[in-house]
Amino acid sequence: MNGKLFTAEEAATLQDIIQQRRDVRGNRFTDRPLEPERVEQLLTAALHAPSVGFSQPWEFVVVNSPIIRQQIRESFDEANAAAQQAFSDRQAEYTRLKLEGILEAPLNIAVFYTPSQGPVLGQTSMPEVGLYSVVCAVQNMWLMARALNIGMGWVSILDADRVKRVLGAPESHRLVAYLCLGYTDGFYERPELEMLEWERRRDRNTVIRQV
Amino acid sequence: MNGKLFTAEEAATLQDIIQQRRDVRGNRFTDRPLEPERVEQLLTAALHAPSVGFSQPWEFVVVNSPIIRQQIRESFDEANAAAQQAFSDRQAEYTRLKLEGILEAPLNIAVFYTPSQGPVLGQTSMPEVGLYSVVCAVQNMWLMARALNIGMGWVSILDADRVKRVLGAPESHRLVAYLCLGYTDGFYERPELEMLEWERRRDRNTVIRQV
Repeated sequence: MNGKLFTAEEAATLQDIIQQRRDVRGNRFTDRPLEPERVEQLLTAALHAPSVGFSQPWEFVVVNSPIIRQQIRESFDEANAAAQQAFSDRQAEYTRLKLEGILEAPLNIAVFYTPSQGPVLGQTSMPEVGLYSVVCAVQNMWLMARALNIGMGWVSILDADRVKRVLGAPESHRLVAYLCLGYTDGFYERPELEMLEWERRRDRNTVIRQV
Repeated sequence: MNGKLFTAEEAATLQDIIQQRRDVRGNRFTDRPLEPERVEQLLTAALHAPSVGFSQPWEFVVVNSPIIRQQIRESFDEANAAAQQAFSDRQAEYTRLKLEGILEAPLNIAVFYTPSQGPVLGQTSMPEVGLYSVVCAVQNMWLMARALNIGMGWVSILDADRVKRVLGAPESHRLVAYLCLGYTDGFYERPELEMLEWERRRDRNTVIRQV
């Protein structure tokens, strides 16, 4: 067979990485900076994601500027204040949650979808699969971060158009993810929202069916 | 530190899996059936994907019925005939490509987004992140498949609403991915569309910038 044959042990390593990946928030990052070669490894993982028609419709913006980060954080603060209203019966509980790490994390990366000009193979019937390619790249980064013992959090409580303007992205680009990355003092044993009983893990039988 | 510390060797294994993952089409699947425990491993990987607000907004439909597969294949054929028109200058080249493995693959899995009722933590500003959680699950399956030396292909040239009806999914569900899975006679060294010069790999410097 062409291509490497992975061993059962290597598959078990992947299963471990998948199961121990966590969303890491700002109260868990340490000050230790990320080495440039680690950042390269994370981006390399992203760039080897699948993409529809091999279109690679993505841009990764590494955000170093403290002023820009502050502006992103302001967008979070506004969006989060609005979000709290939606959880009327659990507002106190919601307010206690730390939901981002924009200023605390040593590294921020914004990930954009950059639509292709002209038709893309495989994207003609379901145009949204271009965005999905970019999400696959984010998930690759998340798993690679965990394998490198680096924490990553995905911030989605943002005004996407405002973030786009702040980062000087072209009008045609679309924000898919805003990521906070850095070494952490630890990975929780289970998802934080499960541990806090915000949500329960769904029963396997309720989400899998056969036809 | 809480949580397992992965070694550099384990991180290198993940990097290998990521770089050697391929989209496998119908001309590459062998007849060897997938063992039930392998299917369970693939679904377990999916169910440990990140999801916004731990909402787990997904359903996985394992498609065994040959009649249903035939109907899905008909949707592909129609959508693909329409798609060819979009590639007017490369139509002959397009027609030669094998773009699905619906009938050839030993296993098909349709993956749906199942929107939550009521607000979801983290989904209040960018509602599309619910869909993105499901895509993360698909990417977990793709990597786990590769680690188990199983081929997977993502078919996106489909009428999503028709597939939904054929699979008896509720109106509120949304098709995210239709996957073909099975053992394969080999994984190409590079993405097939890169090898065939349909698209080139983009230069790293054009998709990464710093601010």
